[in-house]
Amino acid sequence: MLLKTEIRPGTYFDSVILMHLQRGLAALPGVDDAGVVMATPANLELLADFDLLSPESQAANPDDMLIVVRAQTEQAAADALAQVDELLKKRRSNVSSQYRPRSLAAAAGQLPESAITLISVPGRYAAAVAHQALDLGQHVFLYSDNVSLDDEIALKTKAAEKSLLVMGPDCGTAIVNGVGLGFANRVRRGPIGVVAASGTGLQAVTAGIHNLGGGVSQAFGTGGRDLKTEINAATALQALDVLARDPETKVVVLVSKPPAAAVATRLLAAAQACGKPVVVQFIGYPPPGRQIGSLHFAASLHEAAETAVALAANPVTEKPAPPLRGFLRGLFSGGTLAYEAMLGLQATLTPLHSNTPIQPEQELADVYNSTGHTIIDLGEDDFTQGRLHPMLDNDLRLRRLKQELDDPEAGLILLDVVLGEGAHPDPASELAPAIAAGGKARRDIEFVALVVGTDEDPQGLDAQIEQLQTAGARVFRTTAEAVSYVSQRLAATPPPMVAPVDLAAFQRPLAAINVGLESFYDSLTTQGAAAVHVDWRPPAGGNEKLMDLLARMKTSP
Amino acid sequence: MLLKTEIRPGTYFDSVILMHLQRGLAALPGVDDAGVVMATPANLELLADFDLLSPESQAANPDDMLIVVRAQTEQAAADALAQVDELLKKRRSNVSSQYRPRSLAAAAGQLPESAITLISVPGRYAAAVAHQALDLGQHVFLYSDNVSLDDEIALKTKAAEKSLLVMGPDCGTAIVNGVGLGFANRVRRGPIGVVAASGTGLQAVTAGIHNLGGGVSQAFGTGGRDLKTEINAATALQALDVLARDPETKVVVLVSKPPAAAVATRLLAAAQACGKPVVVQFIGYPPPGRQIGSLHFAASLHEAAETAVALAANPVTEKPAPPLRGFLRGLFSGGTLAYEAMLGLQATLTPLHSNTPIQPEQELADVYNSTGHTIIDLGEDDFTQGRLHPMLDNDLRLRRLKQELDDPEAGLILLDVVLGEGAHPDPASELAPAIAAGGKARRDIEFVALVVGTDEDPQGLDAQIEQLQTAGARVFRTTAEAVSYVSQRLAATPPPMVAPVDLAAFQRPLAAINVGLESFYDSLTTQGAAAVHVDWRPPAGGNEKLMDLLARMKTSP
Repeated sequence: MLLKTEIRPGTYFDSVILMHLQRGLAALPGVDDAGVVMATPANLELLADFDLLSPESQAANPDDMLIVVRAQTEQAAADALAQVDELLKKRRSNVSSQYRPRSLAAAAGQLPESAITLISVPGRYAAAVAHQALDLGQHVFLYSDNVSLDDEIALKTKAAEKSLLVMGPDCGTAIVNGVGLGFANRVRRGPIGVVAASGTGLQAVTAGIHNLGGGVSQAFGTGGRDLKTEINAATALQALDVLARDPETKVVVLVSKPPAAAVATRLLAAAQACGKPVVVQFIGYPPPGRQIGSLHFAASLHEAAETAVALAANPVTEKPAPPLRGFLRGLFSGGTLAYEAMLGLQATLTPLHSNTPIQPEQELADVYNSTGHTIIDLGEDDFTQGRLHPMLDNDLRLRRLKQELDDPEAGLILLDVVLGEGAHPDPASELAPAIAAGGKARRDIEFVALVVGTDEDPQGLDAQIEQLQTAGARVFRTTAEAVSYVSQRLAATPPPMVAPVDLAAFQRPLAAINVGLESFYDSLTTQGAAAVHVDWRPPAGGNEKLMDLLARMKTSP
Repeated sequence: MLLKTEIRPGTYFDSVILMHLQRGLAALPGVDDAGVVMATPANLELLADFDLLSPESQAANPDDMLIVVRAQTEQAAADALAQVDELLKKRRSNVSSQYRPRSLAAAAGQLPESAITLISVPGRYAAAVAHQALDLGQHVFLYSDNVSLDDEIALKTKAAEKSLLVMGPDCGTAIVNGVGLGFANRVRRGPIGVVAASGTGLQAVTAGIHNLGGGVSQAFGTGGRDLKTEINAATALQALDVLARDPETKVVVLVSKPPAAAVATRLLAAAQACGKPVVVQFIGYPPPGRQIGSLHFAASLHEAAETAVALAANPVTEKPAPPLRGFLRGLFSGGTLAYEAMLGLQATLTPLHSNTPIQPEQELADVYNSTGHTIIDLGEDDFTQGRLHPMLDNDLRLRRLKQELDDPEAGLILLDVVLGEGAHPDPASELAPAIAAGGKARRDIEFVALVVGTDEDPQGLDAQIEQLQTAGARVFRTTAEAVSYVSQRLAATPPPMVAPVDLAAFQRPLAAINVGLESFYDSLTTQGAAAVHVDWRPPAGGNEKLMDLLARMKTSP
């Protein structure tokens, strides 16, 4: 058993080509295993793990292609290495027959209609390439991973200023104007737009839409970190805004693993204001309900596709009334009703405060004084010590109601009224007069009552509802409906995009520059897109110390 | 403005009666405010907060009723106090005309058919009363709050040994054999059984069922802490078991605020094995999907009612195949698919391990070796360093598959196969032979493949599926379907109840003992239940030091 080594100095191939060469060599007669890598320190370690690190390998530099063959005989190894050029030729894509510009700038000159640059170079080089692309006015599809959070922030800040999208880093997939980028299922075109912070999430949803007979207008990947606190949905918000303005898009789908809570609220508030139905599947995010106004929450990726297709078939024009000014004050007697209402309302109302917070940051500093949007569970110990439960005794609720009416910030009062055995025999007789008086004193305040009861309850369901309605309250019978109404009435208008992305780039036939994996270039041209592949090589010959030095020289004054 | 005080030594009334007296006094002419309390230190503080603490009040003992009136004149105050007996008489319920036993034992003698005792005495006395009830063979509905966790554990341990249910502490509601306990909506009887760890949650669901035309067999409250780790769903599991055996119950609904993760899994595994469709609404719990076998996950309390009513109208007989032995080994190329599968499977498979855990305790100690149920995302950095993504390169997945086949603990191998642009041109050609060989070597192992793709994908969807099926894999097209299948195939049989609760107690017309709020007695008799009210007073005259001494004497050897 022996190792034979070949070093090709200054020769760069991408990892797909290297893999195919390695597979080809390993399959040759008499060959036991083979390693084909760019000779970076990490890759040398990897070769060692597979018992493929020959002593000669140590002489290779990071910008050298290193080929090691483990064979049974000297002859088999030599024969294998003699096949390298043949195997490379066989596996080379149609890129090789083209003229290949050596820089992004040259590529942009060659394909001036290019709107987007696909970047799949190794992670440590990716941010610099993406900056170049943005500087050339290109949207960026950044497939590369191992890009730092700081680099992502810098890239997305620059992109936002230039009205450009950065999909990624670590963005595996997108469908732009009918052309799949990276990994993408082939789907028919149609009225459903997708924004996804997860790769196979986007694929499962777009494939599901197609399989159900629907179609996709645009599907934007954002990279998996976009909905983290540090990035604050920068790309997702831009992409949502594009889909909101895109006349081809009738329904939007948002897909992600669970976002940071505040980021989710920000994105959902924007989605609520976008004027189109939005299907949300934040996998593993506690859903605030099935539907809040124009937001539809799905329980699986496939259900997101189903809901989107159903909505696209029956598009409902959403014309929400101009929202109320002022804040929510929810005064609950039922703890679970308060909890369910909070869970629903926190999706879009922020910040939301409570004496029974779901998130720690929602904790009300002083339970006896509301601030901003507030939901109080008056059945909690703070309030019941030495008192009867508020379902039996309205006294404390009436006092608190009066207190809220005295607060000029209050805009909507939400009360639950729970009927049945054991409860107050006629709660509306005490609540309705207070509502009527409040409505007179404060014409700017709305009252919403959630009535839980049946037609057999001793209080008389219809009479209770009628008293409340006559006093001026809008009555709902389920938390879900009350939440949907309140969420729409109090929706904040999200600030408009500072520099909206130009829609036209996504409406023209796709033309793109590809830097990195040649297979992505092949995929683009196979799909009929115009494309140029850049003959990219690691800067400074892959020497990281030298690269660092160059970078420092560039940024020094 | 002056305060006038009356102390009635050794006189006990419950808090509802005290409230009504207080309201009655406060409404009298010339009276400004009134306080009526049992003179415990906490209640004296409360009076002070309302400027109702007279100097004379200090002389009252905890077992004395203390009445304080604040009036504008001496005469108005005196007139008010003169009304006390009249007001008390007016507000007293129909209890007063009955013979009232002084002890639980006497009440049980008077109503031997009583199956359940309602306890609503102040929290500090409640555990002792509940122990007495259990010792008399009574199920317990424990409305009282402020019962310690240790007391709850002791009560539920004793109850389980005696085949009895303890609903509570802090259990606000239940419907037993058509009779509402505590706060309860009046609903028609029917085929839907409810187990709820939340009071208004139970009310909203049962009222919703009635309002949608359905009906309720039994609705058991468990108390809000039952699904916490310390209690481990003791009552919920008993109640579920009762409903599983109850021939009147066709569909079960489980309601709770989010349980502890391990408790949720325990309860859901029992629900999956109960042989009836179960609707789950753990408000704020990330749903594992819409449906896993016989488990249906709702997005709101009202949707839980809707789903239950729909299922009750079309009851499906669930006959799951006998489950497989062995553990799941999920080898994923798509990170989001892995995540969605974990989210679904963790609901019933426990413990579940992964290199991309959702819960910290799911973290796999060694990502290169599976243990128990394991899901691996092979697209994570651990595996892609120096390699292509597993959607491009099956090499690592094939090696890992072989490794799993060598593990006698492996029972079901789950693979995703993601088609489309950019992905491997023919993944099935590499995976199918490995599956076929594995199936031959290990006849005890099942293979499940989740294929994400469309009929336009370059790999040829049908051909890919056919290769996988021919090799022996069961193919699903959505994670949701794959999860539902795998969850049922690997379901563990939960251990049977050690001492199942006798169903008969809930099938006979309800007879109950009431200790505490007289209004609950009134509610029972109004609903046609046989009931006895205990003339309960705080032991040792409410003197807590003396009570402690008595308790210590009882428990000493």
